[in-house]
Amino acid sequence: MSRLIRSICPFLCILLLSVTLHARPRARELGIQIGFFPPGPNNAITDVEGVLVGHVTLNWGSGKLVVGQGPVRTGVTAIRPHGDDIFDNLVFAAAVALNGNGAMTNMEWINERGLLEVPIILTNTLSVGTAYDGVVAYMLKKDLRRVPLPVVAECWDGELNDIAGRHVKEEHVIQAIEKARGGPVPEGSVGAGTGMRMAGFKAGIGTASRILPEANGGYTVGVLVNANIGPRYQLIFDGVSVLQELQSPSPPSSSTRDGSIIVVIATDAPLIPIQLRRLCKRAAMGISRVGAVSHAGSGDFAIAFSTAQRISTSSQLAPSAQGRRKGVDTVETVRDGYITPLFRAVIEATEEAVINSLCVADTIVGRDDRVKPGIPHDRLVEILKRHGRIK
Amino acid sequence: MSRLIRSICPFLCILLLSVTLHARPRARELGIQIGFFPPGPNNAITDVEGVLVGHVTLNWGSGKLVVGQGPVRTGVTAIRPHGDDIFDNLVFAAAVALNGNGAMTNMEWINERGLLEVPIILTNTLSVGTAYDGVVAYMLKKDLRRVPLPVVAECWDGELNDIAGRHVKEEHVIQAIEKARGGPVPEGSVGAGTGMRMAGFKAGIGTASRILPEANGGYTVGVLVNANIGPRYQLIFDGVSVLQELQSPSPPSSSTRDGSIIVVIATDAPLIPIQLRRLCKRAAMGISRVGAVSHAGSGDFAIAFSTAQRISTSSQLAPSAQGRRKGVDTVETVRDGYITPLFRAVIEATEEAVINSLCVADTIVGRDDRVKPGIPHDRLVEILKRHGRIK
Amino acid sequence: MSRLIRSICPFLCILLLSVTLHARPRARELGIQIGFFPPGPNNAITDVEGVLVGHVTLNWGSGKLVVGQGPVRTGVTAIRPHGDDIFDNLVFAAAVALNGNGAMTNMEWINERGLLEVPIILTNTLSVGTAYDGVVAYMLKKDLRRVPLPVVAECWDGELNDIAGRHVKEEHVIQAIEKARGGPVPEGSVGAGTGMRMAGFKAGIGTASRILPEANGGYTVGVLVNANIGPRYQLIFDGVSVLQELQSPSPPSSSTRDGSIIVVIATDAPLIPIQLRRLCKRAAMGISRVGAVSHAGSGDFAIAFSTAQRISTSSQLAPSAQGRRKGVDTVETVRDGYITPLFRAVIEATEEAVINSLCVADTIVGRDDRVKPGIPHDRLVEILKRHGRIK
Amino acid sequence: MSRLIRSICPFLCILLLSVTLHARPRARELGIQIGFFPPGPNNAITDVEGVLVGHVTLNWGSGKLVVGQGPVRTGVTAIRPHGDDIFDNLVFAAAVALNGNGAMTNMEWINERGLLEVPIILTNTLSVGTAYDGVVAYMLKKDLRRVPLPVVAECWDGELNDIAGRHVKEEHVIQAIEKARGGPVPEGSVGAGTGMRMAGFKAGIGTASRILPEANGGYTVGVLVNANIGPRYQLIFDGVSVLQELQSPSPPSSSTRDGSIIVVIATDAPLIPIQLRRLCKRAAMGISRVGAVSHAGSGDFAIAFSTAQRISTSSQLAPSAQGRRKGVDTVETVRDGYITPLFRAVIEATEEAVINSLCVADTIVGRDDRVKPGIPHDRLVEILKRHGRIK
Repeated sequence: MSRLIRSICPFLCILLLSVTLHARPRARELGIQIGFFPPGPNNAITDVEGVLVGHVTLNWGSGKLVVGQGPVRTGVTAIRPHGDDIFDNLVFAAAVALNGNGAMTNMEWINERGLLEVPIILTNTLSVGTAYDGVVAYMLKKDLRRVPLPVVAECWDGELNDIAGRHVKEEHVIQAIEKARGGPVPEGSVGAGTGMRMAGFKAGIGTASRILPEANGGYTVGVLVNANIGPRYQLIFDGVSVLQELQSPSPPSSSTRDGSIIVVIATDAPLIPIQLRRLCKRAAMGISRVGAVSHAGSGDFAIAFSTAQRISTSSQLAPSAQGRRKGVDTVETVRDGYITPLFRAVIEATEEAVINSLCVADTIVGRDDRVKPGIPHDRLVEILKRHGRIK
Repeated sequence: MSRLIRSICPFLCILLLSVTLHARPRARELGIQIGFFPPGPNNAITDVEGVLVGHVTLNWGSGKLVVGQGPVRTGVTAIRPHGDDIFDNLVFAAAVALNGNGAMTNMEWINERGLLEVPIILTNTLSVGTAYDGVVAYMLKKDLRRVPLPVVAECWDGELNDIAGRHVKEEHVIQAIEKARGGPVPEGSVGAGTGMRMAGFKAGIGTASRILPEANGGYTVGVLVNANIGPRYQLIFDGVSVLQELQSPSPPSSSTRDGSIIVVIATDAPLIPIQLRRLCKRAAMGISRVGAVSHAGSGDFAIAFSTAQRISTSSQLAPSAQGRRKGVDTVETVRDGYITPLFRAVIEATEEAVINSLCVADTIVGRDDRVKPGIPHDRLVEILKRHGRIK
Repeated sequence: MSRLIRSICPFLCILLLSVTLHARPRARELGIQIGFFPPGPNNAITDVEGVLVGHVTLNWGSGKLVVGQGPVRTGVTAIRPHGDDIFDNLVFAAAVALNGNGAMTNMEWINERGLLEVPIILTNTLSVGTAYDGVVAYMLKKDLRRVPLPVVAECWDGELNDIAGRHVKEEHVIQAIEKARGGPVPEGSVGAGTGMRMAGFKAGIGTASRILPEANGGYTVGVLVNANIGPRYQLIFDGVSVLQELQSPSPPSSSTRDGSIIVVIATDAPLIPIQLRRLCKRAAMGISRVGAVSHAGSGDFAIAFSTAQRISTSSQLAPSAQGRRKGVDTVETVRDGYITPLFRAVIEATEEAVINSLCVADTIVGRDDRVKPGIPHDRLVEILKRHGRIK
Repeated sequence: MSRLIRSICPFLCILLLSVTLHARPRARELGIQIGFFPPGPNNAITDVEGVLVGHVTLNWGSGKLVVGQGPVRTGVTAIRPHGDDIFDNLVFAAAVALNGNGAMTNMEWINERGLLEVPIILTNTLSVGTAYDGVVAYMLKKDLRRVPLPVVAECWDGELNDIAGRHVKEEHVIQAIEKARGGPVPEGSVGAGTGMRMAGFKAGIGTASRILPEANGGYTVGVLVNANIGPRYQLIFDGVSVLQELQSPSPPSSSTRDGSIIVVIATDAPLIPIQLRRLCKRAAMGISRVGAVSHAGSGDFAIAFSTAQRISTSSQLAPSAQGRRKGVDTVETVRDGYITPLFRAVIEATEEAVINSLCVADTIVGRDDRVKPGIPHDRLVEILKRHGRIK
């Protein structure tokens, strides 16, 4: 393929993918219903008002792997807490490594100050540096004096993608940020999810949301995952270990190239950082419900933010009337007695987001003609019906 | 009840309980089979060679609560890594707060040095101080110069027990330590589990174990829980959310008096502390599988130790031949590529231990004639059969 | 000594000690001036408005150690954020183990929820259980339905005290809480500091405070320490390593019985828990300035709370006008740009509090006629003058 | 300056700098002696056998800042635990954020597994992404199938450097790794230290080491810092707050652009990861002794590794004679009673490394003709003599 065509290709692919998006149904469209709380209108992280998601999908080439040429099955996904300039309109945040064998950059900085000042970027393992640079470039475009500390999280897509070819470029990151929007979120083999797989099937981006009852505060919780969780011995759909019935069960494997998962949690509940950290820890409970064990070689990370309030970076405030108290923000914090429903919403939405990623992602052929099949819906529905999960 | 009878009563109760132990079948006896790995001979934490468990059950009185008199439904459970003096024969250990609204004393000390030097004590929330004193007394009996830092973990049993009466005494703790033994472990309403409940049913002590295939190292993992996990909206048995079928479903509750769970993990795999910490984190994934969400008011803690190697406290070693290296221990550590099966074993054994606690614990009548029913086996089996979980 | 006299003795001792309090000058009275920021009126943790401190000193007997009889050189110190019922008027808090080889109970619970609901209790290592029980008893006196999780921190006083005799009783803890008051704070060999020593000299309770300039918010930071930091190879006063000149220098020791330090930090700055955690971490920097290295066997803990706002435990709020948002507290949080001066104040006040403990504590004779000398003021002043530290 | 000249310039500068290295004396050459333990032959991190350090210095241009053109005052420093391929010869490691407002990438992965598999790279804040890519490129050069997770730590050099120009390139990182060597380590304005400053003076790379007495194990501890610690209100040399005498004291500032410090700790003591973590925490105590407070906006990180033992990544081992135990490494661990001297060595070496960076770094003129003076040795010596610190 000529250099010219290759450079055009990403944009063509994005075009094509947009057309085919949602060609495959999501879990609820198949009749699978996870948990108790109802989802929001899009059943997506974007149900949390203001949250934006942008994908740039890099999907070209076929056949034998030639490092630097392809095949390319990768991309970038950007999640923004709101449409304004995040560097000047910080939101409370927290991040937790569920199993830290992977990268989420600058977690220490989030957890030291409790604030998020950049879009969250998902990409592949060997493109973290470039994605980091991409966020720096994006921020310097706005103001050359900025010193951002980007948050980039990765999963390994080398089973399908020419990962060593490092095809993600700074401009892809900037695009993903700039094209991020609300409303329905493309899932499956899109953005950073393009080369992902899970338990032997094609996976990738998935999302879901939950609306709490008014008695629990009426808050919205949205989750977006990049699901790439490893080996094939277990996959649980709504409590049913489907893998053994979907195909002949494989024996447990001790492979260390297990893949990973990134869980991004958004909420409009007014939580302070110590509370958002607790939401992150529930992501581990959500992925456990689909059969994950956070393998030794897994990079499983959760990051949570609250859109309820914005913190300004300005410290140039005039003294208050009392001659002090300058540089103080007034914020809200949910009382401890009202937090449990938020935990449950995180677990439910995480579980459903992973399942959505599997349901939506279609069969893909990657490097060296490796085929990663989309989960067979008819078989899946048949199994879940037999187990009384789908009526 | 007279003071005399009351003081005799604990021993009577222990006697009576011993007789009735295992009157109710465990999960596997009902046909419930959790996970992939086989259990050890006792399907108990004691399958890890050398591990000992001791219960002291305090169970007397009935009728209306009179603080200080009863009814008493509480106790003490002691877990010892081995039968020798633990203070002089330390084992590697780690402890993690899954949700920290409860007590496990001296976790910082375990996590600073990576060693366990005391028996692990489980009891009720208001008896932590006394249990702490009990371990101190036990250690001083051996050597008055000792300065132990006890590890005491609690769950709240005030729904059934006169918890404010603080009926646990130092001698109960010493007894639980001294009578600890290997072999089959009494479960359900015994020791610290006497007053526990979960999702509306009687619960308490549960245990399970897993033996890894030789290809995964052939190690044993054992788990013991004190299960007291809160509200009644969800309870999952092998993937089946049984609560809705066991009874009319109750609406989700935001109650903060949710109960807690303590998970004690033992293994003979030679793990260093940083690796044991990873095992602890998998306990959250295990309890998630039975429907727990680690409520805001829940004190969910995990502690793990390895019996594979003992660390001496002596620092009086002579210099080595090279004139240095004194004060060095030689230990083994499992390579990262072999850890995942241990994670899976922890998740499976934790899930089964919780289920065992529910299966074995029988109906109990506590303070103010409150009845906490044992889970109805016939209904449970019927549901699981209908869902294809029991053949 | 008869049982009667022994039981009266603590109260006599408290009386006697009250008389002799401040017999020895504090650091500033000697001309030692630590840091840049000015102290508050009492140069004590009680300069943070509302904070109360109570000591119960147990000091009786002499001669040879007879375990259970004495000599007794120990006690209890209670720190309360305010004079109201703390269980119903929570304050934001955080706790950090600088070196975790010691006990501070229920740190996980503080750090999970970010709130303090009990008085902070300091005592000796083997009395943690009893002190824990004492706080439980105190809370149950107010309401039998309470389920408190006490915060008890300890230092080892067995060099001077019959520590294995466990002379601290529940009532001493209740007394310390109930007699806590504002104003000047007794220092040195008082309360939990009675048996403490540091670098070969008598030490114990010390306190100091700092008032920030109005431009930095005008906040007050107060610190109280129980200083028991170990071996004798280094002791730094205002940058001068005085130990070598105070006496013939001893060679570095690798002893593991090094002692510990507890640092309690109070402020009226409106900090949320994640910010209070940062204050705690600066305690390590403060104790480093007096020469501490946080030895392997040292239990060095910091706990910080903010008195600026109270959080109610009630979750029974009526819905707001919008039909939601019930169970939300409105709080203030200092902007990141204004936190550094608070860090500096913690470091300065911690350094000075340790020095105060050494300056005030007088020579004491303990078990087996062991003498622990008060630091010689004349020699100390002479050294610091020679080094240009005192004019 | 033409594009050609600019691209040659880094190599010229490196050449020139090599010539001028050690033009300014180190602390001990000035008579300043920190702590008790003796330094190793080079008084450098390279005294830990096998450790290698490589600098690439980018230093060209002058006058007004033109982003993308210069002036350039930055660079890259690489630290390697040994000369072999680190990806296949892992060493135990740990990393701690002392104050997390900065980047050290992939700390979670180090702390999850306890192993270091990449060279440690130091550079400027906006070049983290490129340096990350540089390590990836270096690793892929060795084997295209590698999936490394680079460790890149940064300090901000924008006061002197065209930081937004992002002049560090992948090849600089590869060079720094490949040219790393043992023996004396260039300090001051070299490598990542080129644009650093501290308390108003030029700073940058500094290093020091300590040799423990045979009675303490005879181990070596080496520290390398990139010192960039902020504002000018305090600077302590061997206990003497020299800033007020070196120049008219400036009032305390609440500026948030305070700079940072990275502390790299190496030792040949056989420590397991939980023990190396404790060494990291002592770095905070070391920087406290030179007057640092870890400002709110400071990115202060410590990373420690032990060269005593190497862990293979291979999991393809044959079963042992007993049919199990494959995949186990045998390692040594220093007993708790021997760790304190290592802590002291870390504190002493960190303090001296920071002081060395200040003593060696000479006056530099940066962007917009900003002058950052080298600390005046004559004045410094005079002050320290007057305070009895230099004889």
